[in-house]
Amino acid sequence: MLAGEPRAIARAITLIENDAPEGHDLVRLLYPRSGRAHVIGVTGPPGAGKSTLVNGLTSAFRRRGRTVGVVAVDPSSPFTGGAVLGDRVRMGAHAQDAGVFVRSMATRGQLGGLSRATGDAALVMDAAGRDVVIIETVGVGQDEVDIVRAADVSVVVLVPGAGDDVQAMKAGIMEIADVFVVNKADHEGADELVRAIAAALALQPASDGAWTPPIVKTEATTGLGIDDLCAAIDAFEAGGGGRGRRAQARAEHRLREVLAQRAVEDVARRLPPAAFEEMTARVARREIDPYSAAGALIAQAWPVQA
Amino acid sequence: MLAGEPRAIARAITLIENDAPEGHDLVRLLYPRSGRAHVIGVTGPPGAGKSTLVNGLTSAFRRRGRTVGVVAVDPSSPFTGGAVLGDRVRMGAHAQDAGVFVRSMATRGQLGGLSRATGDAALVMDAAGRDVVIIETVGVGQDEVDIVRAADVSVVVLVPGAGDDVQAMKAGIMEIADVFVVNKADHEGADELVRAIAAALALQPASDGAWTPPIVKTEATTGLGIDDLCAAIDAFEAGGGGRGRRAQARAEHRLREVLAQRAVEDVARRLPPAAFEEMTARVARREIDPYSAAGALIAQAWPVQA
Repeated sequence: MLAGEPRAIARAITLIENDAPEGHDLVRLLYPRSGRAHVIGVTGPPGAGKSTLVNGLTSAFRRRGRTVGVVAVDPSSPFTGGAVLGDRVRMGAHAQDAGVFVRSMATRGQLGGLSRATGDAALVMDAAGRDVVIIETVGVGQDEVDIVRAADVSVVVLVPGAGDDVQAMKAGIMEIADVFVVNKADHEGADELVRAIAAALALQPASDGAWTPPIVKTEATTGLGIDDLCAAIDAFEAGGGGRGRRAQARAEHRLREVLAQRAVEDVARRLPPAAFEEMTARVARREIDPYSAAGALIAQAWPVQA
Repeated sequence: MLAGEPRAIARAITLIENDAPEGHDLVRLLYPRSGRAHVIGVTGPPGAGKSTLVNGLTSAFRRRGRTVGVVAVDPSSPFTGGAVLGDRVRMGAHAQDAGVFVRSMATRGQLGGLSRATGDAALVMDAAGRDVVIIETVGVGQDEVDIVRAADVSVVVLVPGAGDDVQAMKAGIMEIADVFVVNKADHEGADELVRAIAAALALQPASDGAWTPPIVKTEATTGLGIDDLCAAIDAFEAGGGGRGRRAQARAEHRLREVLAQRAVEDVARRLPPAAFEEMTARVARREIDPYSAAGALIAQAWPVQA
């Protein structure tokens, strides 16, 4: 896996995803070997063409001789066959290139949460020597936005027409962008969208030496503007942003997340087997409220010591 | 508040939202008085016209003499003034009607998580005697889908054209629908979308006596189809679905959520003040992985007793 062998990377991610003790041992081994990759978060509303853009970015980085890992947080449904089919479809032009590794994550049924699973997949790709790790999410949900916020550089993709400008502004993703992309720039309304973003940015309180997010126009389907996007990402890194800048925030996010999960597991382990179920039934019957119920379970699991 | 006075409801929600001890006391008092409201979850991708549809549903329930509370999970941005402005805009025709109460929730910066805050707001409206509580979310994020999944009846709103059918299927919201709405039914492609949903439903494994989600065509802006939607919601409830059916699942969801939050707080309280920060710094420097770090913090907070 450390040599970058794709099947070994895939197996390692699966092992960690399943939240088994072997997976945690693997994280322990890989963690000191990670931290070298440049983590790029890409987010935006559904239909903004993020996947095509990420494909284009991947090609651009490959042309520059850099290896790429992609973690795509794809809302998936049991109806569609979910994430596995998605990987094969997404690989597209890169299917034969060992320098590209793509992993789709389902947003449902992740043990311990989407954010933990995404972070672990990125960690494996990082430790496996990928120069660039791109994390792609649909930027509407809270978890999904938080994932991208923790990247070294956050790219927000918007698109003219599909939902109005106000929709984009309301999407809660304006304030996390280090770089804006107006994709489908050949569509009507692209220039208006660029102006609307610029106007929204102008309303932000100015701070000395602060980075002003550039707005890059792209046509992901033809590749137009992709090199400009790479340049904007590089400029952000060169300007004191970029790699390592958010390491502290990312570490805190991950530690909090794992701590919450582990704490609940620890409570569960110290309680009698049926305690949680019985308390749930009492909450459902409205005999006790969730706050009191949680307090009672914690007090039972971890009695205060004299 | 129990008499349904809007300003008192608003203050109660704010108190609970802030996650202060007084808020928890209030939940304790209100919890036994809740559980009567019919909780309707409405979700769908951005731009599907959910807000207009919820407004139409609200009018329809008011015509039937039922009081309504709306919890709108609106991704909001500091750029737009956020949720407070939203409430006033959303109230629209119902601004003068004491039988309607609307509360928008920001998706960011909720202490203890979006799902907890949403559940608490719905609880207050329920205890305040609202007959119907409608929870509206943008159904793309994991949290947002989970919120709607826990409602007595889940309505999924799709729209022709805005993103293709595959987008809708991929949105991870197909499988949670008790009722489908094809909104903007006058737009091109509405009938194709109805057929695509029906085809996707036909692929589901059949089970004896299982509810087949009806597909209701609406034009939220004109009110067309809103009565059909009310009828579909009532039919779901009459058919053994509906009120109380998901009480157990909802109780478990809320208990887990509060338990995770409380457990982390309990760890933090028992640790020396700087312990979490120091551990975060060590994780950021890659001296320790997040799993080992979380384990160490928990072991320090709650030493295993001899």
